[in-house]
Amino acid sequence: MATTTDFDTIAAISTPPGEGGISIIRISGEDALQVISKLYRGKDLSKVASHTINYGHIMDPETKEDIDEVMVSVMLAPKTYTCEDVIEINCHGGIVATNTILQLVLSYGARMAEPGEFTKRAFLNGRIDLSQSEAVMDIIDAKTNRSMKAAEGQLDGNLSRLIRTLRQQILDVLANVEVNIDYPEYDDAEVVTSNLLMKNAKDIKEKIIKLLKTSKQGQVLRDGLATSIVGRPNVGKSSILNHLLHQDKAIVTDVPGTTRDVLEEYVNVRGVPLKLVDTAGIRKTEDKVEKIGVDRSRKAIQSSDLVLLVLNSSEALSDEDKKLIELTDDAKRIVILNKTDLPQKIDIDEINQLIGKENVITTSAIKDDGTEPLEEMIAHLFFNEGIQSSQADVMVTNARHVSLLHKAKESLNNVISGLDDGMPVDLVQMDMRDCWEALGEITGDSYNGELLDQLFSQFCLGK
Amino acid sequence: MATTTDFDTIAAISTPPGEGGISIIRISGEDALQVISKLYRGKDLSKVASHTINYGHIMDPETKEDIDEVMVSVMLAPKTYTCEDVIEINCHGGIVATNTILQLVLSYGARMAEPGEFTKRAFLNGRIDLSQSEAVMDIIDAKTNRSMKAAEGQLDGNLSRLIRTLRQQILDVLANVEVNIDYPEYDDAEVVTSNLLMKNAKDIKEKIIKLLKTSKQGQVLRDGLATSIVGRPNVGKSSILNHLLHQDKAIVTDVPGTTRDVLEEYVNVRGVPLKLVDTAGIRKTEDKVEKIGVDRSRKAIQSSDLVLLVLNSSEALSDEDKKLIELTDDAKRIVILNKTDLPQKIDIDEINQLIGKENVITTSAIKDDGTEPLEEMIAHLFFNEGIQSSQADVMVTNARHVSLLHKAKESLNNVISGLDDGMPVDLVQMDMRDCWEALGEITGDSYNGELLDQLFSQFCLGK
Repeated sequence: MATTTDFDTIAAISTPPGEGGISIIRISGEDALQVISKLYRGKDLSKVASHTINYGHIMDPETKEDIDEVMVSVMLAPKTYTCEDVIEINCHGGIVATNTILQLVLSYGARMAEPGEFTKRAFLNGRIDLSQSEAVMDIIDAKTNRSMKAAEGQLDGNLSRLIRTLRQQILDVLANVEVNIDYPEYDDAEVVTSNLLMKNAKDIKEKIIKLLKTSKQGQVLRDGLATSIVGRPNVGKSSILNHLLHQDKAIVTDVPGTTRDVLEEYVNVRGVPLKLVDTAGIRKTEDKVEKIGVDRSRKAIQSSDLVLLVLNSSEALSDEDKKLIELTDDAKRIVILNKTDLPQKIDIDEINQLIGKENVITTSAIKDDGTEPLEEMIAHLFFNEGIQSSQADVMVTNARHVSLLHKAKESLNNVISGLDDGMPVDLVQMDMRDCWEALGEITGDSYNGELLDQLFSQFCLGK
Repeated sequence: MATTTDFDTIAAISTPPGEGGISIIRISGEDALQVISKLYRGKDLSKVASHTINYGHIMDPETKEDIDEVMVSVMLAPKTYTCEDVIEINCHGGIVATNTILQLVLSYGARMAEPGEFTKRAFLNGRIDLSQSEAVMDIIDAKTNRSMKAAEGQLDGNLSRLIRTLRQQILDVLANVEVNIDYPEYDDAEVVTSNLLMKNAKDIKEKIIKLLKTSKQGQVLRDGLATSIVGRPNVGKSSILNHLLHQDKAIVTDVPGTTRDVLEEYVNVRGVPLKLVDTAGIRKTEDKVEKIGVDRSRKAIQSSDLVLLVLNSSEALSDEDKKLIELTDDAKRIVILNKTDLPQKIDIDEINQLIGKENVITTSAIKDDGTEPLEEMIAHLFFNEGIQSSQADVMVTNARHVSLLHKAKESLNNVISGLDDGMPVDLVQMDMRDCWEALGEITGDSYNGELLDQLFSQFCLGK
C-alpha cells in the first residue's frame, strides 16, 4: 500500500470560501502539470524545479485573454501532500476570479475533487494512516488550543504508534499460538498457549481501558461541550452569554450544507470548547422579555452536556425556577445566582437544600463579577485532574475510534472468558484476531471502501 | 519613489476567514526571514533559494511544542508582491491553528498589518501605481466576469498608461509655454502660446470626455446596479427574485464590520451585477402575505438604480398598483406583467397609456417563462451598445477616478474660457497645471498620506 496508485487528476479551491487576499486552486494527479501548462502564461513549468513558486498569468486558452495574475507552486511527486504531482494556483482572492480559474482547470483535464479527496489520496498512497487523516480534519475543526494540540498529537502519529504496538503484540501472540498448535507434541503446549493468551489479553485490555479513559476529555476537546443557558426571562442569561461570547473568545462556525441562519457558536473557556445551544433563543426571549417556554428549555437541556441554570438572587425562588431546577436535576449543571449587585432576596438555605452547595456560584454578570470563578468551575468540571502532557500525547478524541476500542475490548473479554470456560485455543484465537482487526480499522491498516467514502465525505472541499 | 523604502515587518492572515483546506499567514519586511526562523522547525531557511516551498513545522519557541505542519514559501526582495522579503506560511486551514501561528509571528517580531498594507507597500515601493492598487481590490470584489475583466485591464495598467500619456502631453505644452515666456523677444510668442494651449486643452478635454463616457458602465460593473423588486403582495415578486437568484448566479457577500444579518446579495445577469435591495423584505412580505407598505417601497425605489415593478396580469390594475407606477415614474424601470399562465384581466391599453410599450415585459415566473427576455432587457438597458473590447481595455470604474476626471475637465474648461477672455498666459497655465495634478492623483503620481490611508483602509486584511 506504500506505492503510489494511479488516479485521475483532481482539482478544488482549497482556501475558505469568501473574499480574501489570496485564494488557492489545488490540482493533484499525473496530469496536473499538463493541465496548468495549458492555462499558464509565463515560463515553461515542465522545466522548473520541484517546490518552486512561479509568477505568471492564467489565461483562457480559447480567447487568449488573461484571467488573473498568479503565483503557481509546482510540487512534484512523491514529496507532496498527496504523494502525486501537486500544482497550487495562488491568485488574488475573490469569488469570481477563483471560480473562473477553477472552471478553466476543470475544462482542461482535471475533475472536481470530492470533499477530503486530497487527504484520501495521501492515505491511499501510504503517506499517512487513517487516524492521521482524521487528525487533519480535526486540526481544521479545532475550537481551542487544547483541541488542536490533541489533533496535532494524532497527526504526528502518537495514537497510530500505540495502536500499532498493540497490534504487533497481538500478532506475536497469535504466531506463538500457531506454533504451539502446529507442534502439539510438546507436552504442555495447551497450558502454555492458554497462559500466553490470557496474560496478553489482560495486558492489552488494560492498555485499551487506559486509552478509553482519555476519550471523555478527548471527545469534549474535539467536538465541544454542548452547553445551554436556561432560566426565567430577565434573570441575566444574555449577560452571562455575552460575557462568555466576548473577549474575542467566540468562534462562529457556519455549518456547511445548511441555511446560513444556522450557525454554531463555540466559546473557548480555558481550553474547553463550549458549543452553545440555542443562543438565538436566548437573545430573542431576553430581548422581548417573553416567557421562555418550559418546553423549549426541556429541549435545550436534553441536547446539552452542561446546563448553566441562571437564577435571579434578588428575587425569591419562583415556581418556574423550581420547575427548571427539577428539569436539570439529572444534568451536569452549574447553578448561577446572578444579580448579586442588587439586594439579595433568594433563600440560600432553600437553594442548598434543593441543589447542594457544590456547583453553585454567585455572579453579577452585568458588573463582570464572579464570571472568572464560573469559567474556573466549567474547566474544573471537565478537567478536574488536569491534562498531563504525557497523557495528552495519546488521547482518543474521535467517536469512531472510541467505538472501535470498545469493540476491541469486547473481543478481549471474549478471549478471557473463553479461556476461563476452557474453550479450545483455536476458537479463542479468533476473538484475538477480531481485536486485531478492530484496532486495524483505527489506523486504516484494515479498511473497506465504504468506510473510506463515509469518512472522507465529512471533510471540507479542497482538503 | 521606485526604490524600496524601509518599513517595519508586518503580518496578517491572507486567506478568507473561516474553515478551509489551507490558510496562509503572510509576512513582509526586512525581518521576515528572521521571524520565521525563530518559529520554524525544518531546514535553514536563510540558506534556501528564493521562491521555494519548504516543508516543516511551526513550533512555539518557548515550549518547543509543535503547533502545525506547514509549507513555508520563501520569496526574497525585490521580486515579490511588496518588493520586500515575503514569507508565506501555508498551514492546515482552521481558525485556531491559523490564529495561533499568527499570534506567534506577532510575538516574535512582526506587527499586525493594516487592511491593504501589503498592497500599499507594493505601491510605496514603486511596483504598481495607485489605480493598479485599486484594481487589486476590485478583482477581489468583482461580482461578474465583466467586472473582473475591467479590473484586470486596470491592473495591467491600461488606465495608467492613458493617464500618463495625457499628463506627458500637458507637460510638453507647459514646457513650450515656459520657453515662450522666457523668450518674449520672438514677435508672435503670445499668439503661438495661446494657440498651443487652446489646441491641447481642447484635445485633452476631448479624450477625458471619451473616458468619462465609459464610467457609467464602468461603475455599474464595479459596484453593481442597485435593483429593487416592488409590487403588491402575491404578484410573484418572490418567484422573480428566486428566478434571478437561482442557477448558481447569486453571490452573497458578507459586509465586513457589520452584523452578520446584513448580507449583500448580487446576481449576475449576463455580466451585469445586480445588487438586490431589501430581499429580506420581499421574502417576509410574500411569506406572510402582508401589505407591503408604500413607504417601504418608496425607500427601496429611492435607493435603486433599477426598479423591477411587478404587476399581476391576471387581475385588474388596483389603486395600489397605480400608486407604485406613479412612484416609479422617474426611476429606470422595467414593468413585469407576471402570471401570464392565468386568464388575463389586466387592461393592456391602460398599461400602454400609463407606462408606454417600452420596458414592459410579460412573464410567468413560476413557469420560468419570459424570464430570459427579462434578463436580456436588463442587460440591454445598461449595455445597449455592447462593450467593445477596445473600449473595455480602458474603462473608468472607480468613483474616485471619475471625480478626478471631472476636476481635470473643469480645469481645462478654465483654460479654454481664460484664453477666450484674453487672460494672460501665465495665469492660464496654472489651470493647465491643476489638470496635470488631478490626473496625477489617479495614478498616485501625486498623492498625500491621508488619501492613501483612506484608500487602503477599504481593502481586506491580508492583502
